[in-house]
Amino acid sequence: MPQVSLSPDGHQLSLQTADATLRFHAIWLRHNALDADTRDQNNGQRLITLADLPDDCTLAAAETTDTTATVTFADGKTTAFPIAWLTANAYDRPQDTTAGHLPEHAETWGEDLNTSVPTGHLPALQSDPASKREWLAAIRKFGFAKVTGMPTTSGALFDIVALFGFVRETNYGRHFEVRTEVNPTNLAFTGLGLQAHTDNPYRDPVPTLQVLACLENSAEGGDNMVVDGFAAAQKLREINPEGFALLHSHSARFEYAGEAGVRLTSRRPVIELTPEGTLQSVRFNARSAAAPVDVPFDDMPAYYAALRQLSDIIDDPASEVRFKLAPGEAFIVDNTRVLHARKGYSGAGNRWLQGCYADKDGLLSTLAALEATA
Amino acid sequence: MPQVSLSPDGHQLSLQTADATLRFHAIWLRHNALDADTRDQNNGQRLITLADLPDDCTLAAAETTDTTATVTFADGKTTAFPIAWLTANAYDRPQDTTAGHLPEHAETWGEDLNTSVPTGHLPALQSDPASKREWLAAIRKFGFAKVTGMPTTSGALFDIVALFGFVRETNYGRHFEVRTEVNPTNLAFTGLGLQAHTDNPYRDPVPTLQVLACLENSAEGGDNMVVDGFAAAQKLREINPEGFALLHSHSARFEYAGEAGVRLTSRRPVIELTPEGTLQSVRFNARSAAAPVDVPFDDMPAYYAALRQLSDIIDDPASEVRFKLAPGEAFIVDNTRVLHARKGYSGAGNRWLQGCYADKDGLLSTLAALEATA
Repeated sequence: MPQVSLSPDGHQLSLQTADATLRFHAIWLRHNALDADTRDQNNGQRLITLADLPDDCTLAAAETTDTTATVTFADGKTTAFPIAWLTANAYDRPQDTTAGHLPEHAETWGEDLNTSVPTGHLPALQSDPASKREWLAAIRKFGFAKVTGMPTTSGALFDIVALFGFVRETNYGRHFEVRTEVNPTNLAFTGLGLQAHTDNPYRDPVPTLQVLACLENSAEGGDNMVVDGFAAAQKLREINPEGFALLHSHSARFEYAGEAGVRLTSRRPVIELTPEGTLQSVRFNARSAAAPVDVPFDDMPAYYAALRQLSDIIDDPASEVRFKLAPGEAFIVDNTRVLHARKGYSGAGNRWLQGCYADKDGLLSTLAALEATA
Repeated sequence: MPQVSLSPDGHQLSLQTADATLRFHAIWLRHNALDADTRDQNNGQRLITLADLPDDCTLAAAETTDTTATVTFADGKTTAFPIAWLTANAYDRPQDTTAGHLPEHAETWGEDLNTSVPTGHLPALQSDPASKREWLAAIRKFGFAKVTGMPTTSGALFDIVALFGFVRETNYGRHFEVRTEVNPTNLAFTGLGLQAHTDNPYRDPVPTLQVLACLENSAEGGDNMVVDGFAAAQKLREINPEGFALLHSHSARFEYAGEAGVRLTSRRPVIELTPEGTLQSVRFNARSAAAPVDVPFDDMPAYYAALRQLSDIIDDPASEVRFKLAPGEAFIVDNTRVLHARKGYSGAGNRWLQGCYADKDGLLSTLAALEATA
């Protein structure tokens, strides 16, 4: 049976399980109590504010069963925690704070993934929760996935977003047409090849997901490639740790002003880390990178050298997964992590893709809800 | 006339103007060149990638007129920059990297702003670009503004978003009704008072703007308050610099699972800074703050002490601007900066607000475009 004990001053609880000894502060336990006085039992929201906590919050008693720890505070309040909840939320643990470590659930990849591209079949994703859960989990793990079995009708890409969330509308519309235009507002709307990039880094907040769906693809070329930006960042860290540090410790700038009435700008690092050093996002886009002004003068040559190394890693065929979408196929990328590219195309035949943006909040929420009931 | 000179190795250009001497690296000038070989002259996007830059990029010659600096690289390429563009994009300058400094254009406020709440009249905002520009600039400066003259019809809040951008749809809908419900999925949908908070900190990306529009307001109470989160963060920094550092250097967690199929979670700091130390965002919400797990064990008591000080600053009436919306009035907040609150309400009469989310990218882009043509 788990054992509990209190520090002499009552500020800490120690929970000893078969695996570990985990300490918790009285103030943390009080603030995060799960009882009906602290949280609405229907929607889980906290009913108290920080001002409702005792000034000097101490514990007077604690006891445990196999599954529950019950604590009594000095002011008489008693509340119970499942042992499993305490171990899942414990903070008395060593933590990886290495700059550039992967977020939970993520796994890096390169060309090796060409033989096992994560793919969901739209009718199955729509009807089978297990299929949907696996497909969403693949996106969380790899940052992209393909879809097959989509209707080849305009707007069918919205069926993909509807699996988990909502479209993010922008100045490009609820969706945009990716095909050759005569006076393109964006080089995406030409037949040019495009270096691997994340979309709209000049937008803050950036759209965190992008869907590209194929309606026609009989032109020569126009293959799509995806590149793992987290793997590229870690590769840069390996060959040039100082350069990696320069890219995450100084803001870059991005801009887009290709249409009347639109002047989008942002100022964020190329590689963004959380305070704990977790990889949070990558912004990389040759077309819309603006002149950096936040890099100290003496560091600028090394900053550019690191950017060029990152660009080389991204351009390396060993980094890329490649496919040519057939009509009725689509792919989705985590636009905070995975870059996408396309080969140039020309000649006879048509290439018509539709794209739209969406956000990860809904995707990860839907996945977590499916996992909770699985 | 401005003077230019080259460093002996050709790696740097010096530009001497009446005000300053500014140095630029050859690689930076080459990458950010403005000519038709480097950028699409129609949409401004860069046509080259980092791989197209010379390996050892050096300058061979430079000359200037009153308005233009023309440089020639060692490989023979010649390109011209407006002097004004170079000075506007110069990086050879001391930079404020104090943790917690304000972003450009922002100005902090407290109760002093009660006598001059920034307000736009919807018909004027819709028809007069100067009115719209001033109203948008007030939001950029203060992080909130009121709107008057809105139709008292359901959905009229979308007219406000249409001034600059697009609705961010979420699990709460394209808009949500803020009125008392019998089985509320969120405590917002009750008559309870709500401590000042930012909305949806459990969502990543967070909605960066919120609109709350009033259709009926004859109940007792229900006043709205707004609080400048950047001012609160700077006040905390003043009274407890170590506590301020704890809040920006460790991730907090937020969660919402009040509806079936929804399990939103995020892991971001309460106070988020850019790598340069600029205040980027504040997340503060008593109802949805989850147990922090990224604070080292020994720092947890000081972390909670800092959180409570921040909460006290936020609750201080000296921090707050207060108003009671009349039907046909609305307010918009920068949800990355400004907290909003409401007094409890009850008794006879009705209180019916509609809310929706939107994003700052479109707002700041629209403002920048208006400023460029003003």
